[in-house]
Amino acid sequence: MTSRDGYQWTPAAGLCSGLPSTGVISPPTNLPPGSSHWDVVVVGAGYAGLTASRDACLAGLRVLLIEARDRIGGRSWSSNLDGYPFEMGGTWIHWGQPHVWREISRYQMRQEMSQSFDHSRGVNYFQLRTDHGSSTMTHADEDVLMATALEKVVNVDGALGRTIMPYPHDAFHDPEARQYDEISVQDRLDELSLSPEEGSAVEAFILLCSGGTLPTTSLFEFLHWWALCGYSYQGCMEYLASYKFRGGQSSFAIQFFREAQSTGRLSYVFQSPVQSIQDQGSQVTVTSRDGQTYSATRLVVTIPLNVLSSITFSPALDSQRITAMEIGHVNQTVKVHAEISNRDMRSWSGISYPFNKLLYAFGDGATPAGNTHIVCFGGAQNHIHPEANVEHTQQAVEAMSPGNMDITRLVFHNWSTDEFAQGAWFFPPPKLLSSSLDALRRRHGNVLFANSDWAVGWRSFIDGAIEEGTRAAKTVTDELRVLRDLPIPK
Amino acid sequence: MTSRDGYQWTPAAGLCSGLPSTGVISPPTNLPPGSSHWDVVVVGAGYAGLTASRDACLAGLRVLLIEARDRIGGRSWSSNLDGYPFEMGGTWIHWGQPHVWREISRYQMRQEMSQSFDHSRGVNYFQLRTDHGSSTMTHADEDVLMATALEKVVNVDGALGRTIMPYPHDAFHDPEARQYDEISVQDRLDELSLSPEEGSAVEAFILLCSGGTLPTTSLFEFLHWWALCGYSYQGCMEYLASYKFRGGQSSFAIQFFREAQSTGRLSYVFQSPVQSIQDQGSQVTVTSRDGQTYSATRLVVTIPLNVLSSITFSPALDSQRITAMEIGHVNQTVKVHAEISNRDMRSWSGISYPFNKLLYAFGDGATPAGNTHIVCFGGAQNHIHPEANVEHTQQAVEAMSPGNMDITRLVFHNWSTDEFAQGAWFFPPPKLLSSSLDALRRRHGNVLFANSDWAVGWRSFIDGAIEEGTRAAKTVTDELRVLRDLPIPK
Repeated sequence: MTSRDGYQWTPAAGLCSGLPSTGVISPPTNLPPGSSHWDVVVVGAGYAGLTASRDACLAGLRVLLIEARDRIGGRSWSSNLDGYPFEMGGTWIHWGQPHVWREISRYQMRQEMSQSFDHSRGVNYFQLRTDHGSSTMTHADEDVLMATALEKVVNVDGALGRTIMPYPHDAFHDPEARQYDEISVQDRLDELSLSPEEGSAVEAFILLCSGGTLPTTSLFEFLHWWALCGYSYQGCMEYLASYKFRGGQSSFAIQFFREAQSTGRLSYVFQSPVQSIQDQGSQVTVTSRDGQTYSATRLVVTIPLNVLSSITFSPALDSQRITAMEIGHVNQTVKVHAEISNRDMRSWSGISYPFNKLLYAFGDGATPAGNTHIVCFGGAQNHIHPEANVEHTQQAVEAMSPGNMDITRLVFHNWSTDEFAQGAWFFPPPKLLSSSLDALRRRHGNVLFANSDWAVGWRSFIDGAIEEGTRAAKTVTDELRVLRDLPIPK
Repeated sequence: MTSRDGYQWTPAAGLCSGLPSTGVISPPTNLPPGSSHWDVVVVGAGYAGLTASRDACLAGLRVLLIEARDRIGGRSWSSNLDGYPFEMGGTWIHWGQPHVWREISRYQMRQEMSQSFDHSRGVNYFQLRTDHGSSTMTHADEDVLMATALEKVVNVDGALGRTIMPYPHDAFHDPEARQYDEISVQDRLDELSLSPEEGSAVEAFILLCSGGTLPTTSLFEFLHWWALCGYSYQGCMEYLASYKFRGGQSSFAIQFFREAQSTGRLSYVFQSPVQSIQDQGSQVTVTSRDGQTYSATRLVVTIPLNVLSSITFSPALDSQRITAMEIGHVNQTVKVHAEISNRDMRSWSGISYPFNKLLYAFGDGATPAGNTHIVCFGGAQNHIHPEANVEHTQQAVEAMSPGNMDITRLVFHNWSTDEFAQGAWFFPPPKLLSSSLDALRRRHGNVLFANSDWAVGWRSFIDGAIEEGTRAAKTVTDELRVLRDLPIPK
C-alpha cells in the first residue's frame, strides 16, 4: 500500500510524493455501523497510541483508535523501495532502551537487528568541512575529536554529568540540575574555549540531536541525552545511531496494531483528523473534521506538542499547558536519504557546517542493488524544505563530500510542513521542561495525554512513546476496572 | 508477616530462622470452594510466575498461581529489619535491564532507587587479602586492577568481546561464540599470564558472578554477562551491584501480585509444593504434595532448573531437557549480610581469596541505627552453610577485614539447602547452554516453561525472569484467544 506521506526523487521519474509502506492501513476503517461508544478512544496511531490501544485491548477494553494519517507509526515509519527499508523518521533502537526492548523481546524480534555503521571496507574516513577549511581523518580520530569536545561541553560537574544527573530516568532527581535548563547550548559554548575543529564538530553533533539552533537547544536536555547514553560519546553513537530493524520501523509498529486487532476489540478510523474533544464528565466526545462523533469513558490523546493547539478542547486546557503549546519544541530536523552508486562510501561519515544546508551524514546501509545508502541531516539552522528545490537538496548532499555523491535516488519526509507533526522528535528550548513537564504529563478530566514529547526516560524517542502509551493504558485499565466493580446505580 | 525462609543472628537472640517480609501472602489461599479448572495454572510465584500470572489475568484469563513457599519472589525477596531492607537474593537493578525497567516505569517506581556504594566518607579503600599477602588501595586503583585483569580474560577477539558477541541479547548470533561455551574460565586463565594480584582479583570477581568454581564456570556465560554490562568493568559494577530498591525487592514483587489480584481473576495457593503434572491433551492437571488437583487449559512451570526433577511429568520430559536437569547449574552462592557498628566501613570493599570461606564484600548501606551494612559473598569454592556454624560464619566475615567487623547482626538465606531453589541464580558449567538452551525454552505439549535460568537476555537476573514470564503469558494469551474464537463443537 502507498501512503500519501513522503517523497522520492529519481533521475528517471523526478520528484514524486507518496511512498509505499507496510504501515498503511487499508481499508481505513473497520467501524461497525451504528457504533458510537467505546471504553476508550485513542487519538493518534504512533507508538504511544499503538501501545495504549494494544494494552487496553489486551485488558479487555473496547478501543477506538482514530488517526489523521493513512498509516500507523506517527513520526516513525519506513518505506521499502527496491527491497531496502528507508526510515523516514525515528530509526535507531538499542537494548538499553527498556520499553522498546521489552517489545522487541516480547515479539521475538531480537534477531531482526542490522547495523548502520560498517567500517569494514571502502573509504573508511571522516570528513570535516567547515568555514575554516576541510580535513579528513580516521574514524578513530573522529571519535577522539568528538569525545574530547563533547566531554568539555557536558562536564558541568567535573564528573561528565554523572554527579548532577545520576539517574537518567529521573533527570530532575538532583534539583541542582534545573539550572541547566535555564541556559542553552550556545550559552555553555560561550563559556568554553574549543578549538575551531572541536567547535564545528560539537556544534554539528548537538544540532544533529536537537534539530534546532544552538540558542534554542536546552543544555539540560542535551545533558539528559548524554546521561541516557551512559555518559560517553561511544554510548551516544551506540544508543542513537547504530542499530535498526532489518525490515524497517513499520515492521515493528505493525506488530502492535495486529495484536490489538487480534483481540477483536479494536475499532479504528484512519484518514480522519480530530477537530475537537469535549469532556462531558460522564463521557468524552471526539469530533472529527468530517463531523463524525465518537464517545468513550476515557480518552487518550497522543498528539505531539506542536500539534495540540489544532484541537479544540472543552473544557479548555489549563494555562500552563497552553503556554507550553505556544512555546512548542524546536526540532525542525531535515532528514534526507541519498542512494549513491559509490560503494566505497559505505564507511564514510562527514560534517559540513555551518555553511551547508545539511550538516551531518554517514553511510547507513547498502541496498540490494549494491549502492550505498547515505543518511543526511539538517535542521532549523540553515533550514530547507527538501522538496521545494530538489536541485538545491542534491547540492547540499553533494556538498557533504564533493565528488563522491553520485545520487541515484533521494527519499525524505518533510516533517516541518507535516501538519500532524509540525517538526521532528521533541527537543525543548531552555526553560520549557523545568516549567512545563509536569503540566504536560497531567490529565485533564477524563482526557489523558501520552506522547514521547513528555516522557520521563527516553523522551523524544520511540522508547518514550511506548513508555507513555503504557502509562496511559495502565491508568485507564485500572480506573475502568474499578468503575465496573461499582454496583450499577438503580 | 513472617516467612519461614531465612535466618537472623544477633548477639542477644542467637540464631533464629524465619524473617518478616511484605512478600508473605496470608491467608495462603483465596481458592473459591469447588473450583478446579482454570485457563492457566502458573507454578511458582517468583518474578517469572508473577509476570505470567499478572499478564494472563490482565488479558482476561482465569489464573491459578500455585507456590511451594509462603511468599512471593522466589530467589529474590527482602526482609525489613528495624527499618532496613535486607536483600536475601536477587537485589540489584538498572535501567539498562529492559524488562525490569519497563515495570519500574509502569509502576512509577523510578524514584524508589538507592545506591549501594557510597564512597563519600569513611575508610574509602579496597582491601585485597590473598594467600600471598594483604594490601589496601584506593577504589580508583581497585578499578584499574579489576578492569585490567578482566579485560585480559574477556579479550578473546581483540575487541573485548564486541566482535564475538555484538548483540548481548542474541549471544549466539555469531556461531563462533559457541567455542567459548566449550571451555571454562579456568581453561581461559590457564592461557593467560596474570600477576598474582590480578589473578586473585579476577578469580574472586568471576566467582562472585558464577557462585561456582573456576572449572565449572562457562567462559561463554561470563562473556555474555560482560557483553550485557556494556563490555566494561565499570559497566559490570553499574549494572550488577549499584542500584537497588529503597523498599527492598519485595516492595516491587508485590506490585505484580496486587495488580493480578485487582483483576478479580487470580486464584492462588501458597505453601503447596507441586508433586506431579499430567498433560492429558485437552487439559493439564497439577497435583500438589497434599493430594489436591488443579486443572487448566495451559500450564506455565517456572520452577528453576535445579528443582525441575522434583516434579513428575506425564508424559515424560524429553531426554535433552532431562540431561540438562541432571547436569544442573553450578551456582551455590552464599550471601551473608553483616550489620556492623563501624560507620566508616560504609565506603569499604574487599576480597579475601582463596583462603577464606567468603570471598567478596562491600559496604552496601547504612541502617537507621547508624550501622554499616556489609554484604558478603561466598560460593561453591570453599562452600559453607552459614547457619550450620554461626561462629565460623562470623569468622569468615571478620576475615574479610580483620579488626573492623564488629558484628551486631547477621542475616542470610541458605539457597543451597533450600529445596525450592537448590542453588542461587543460574550459572552454567561449560557445554550446558550450547547443548540445552533451546531444549529448556521449548514447550512440552500444553506445558510452557518460563524461568530466568533459560532467558535469552539477562539470563539469571530478575530481568530474565520477567522476560520469560512475559513470553509465556503472550503465548498462552495468543493461543487461548484463538481457541475461544473457534466455533463451539456440537
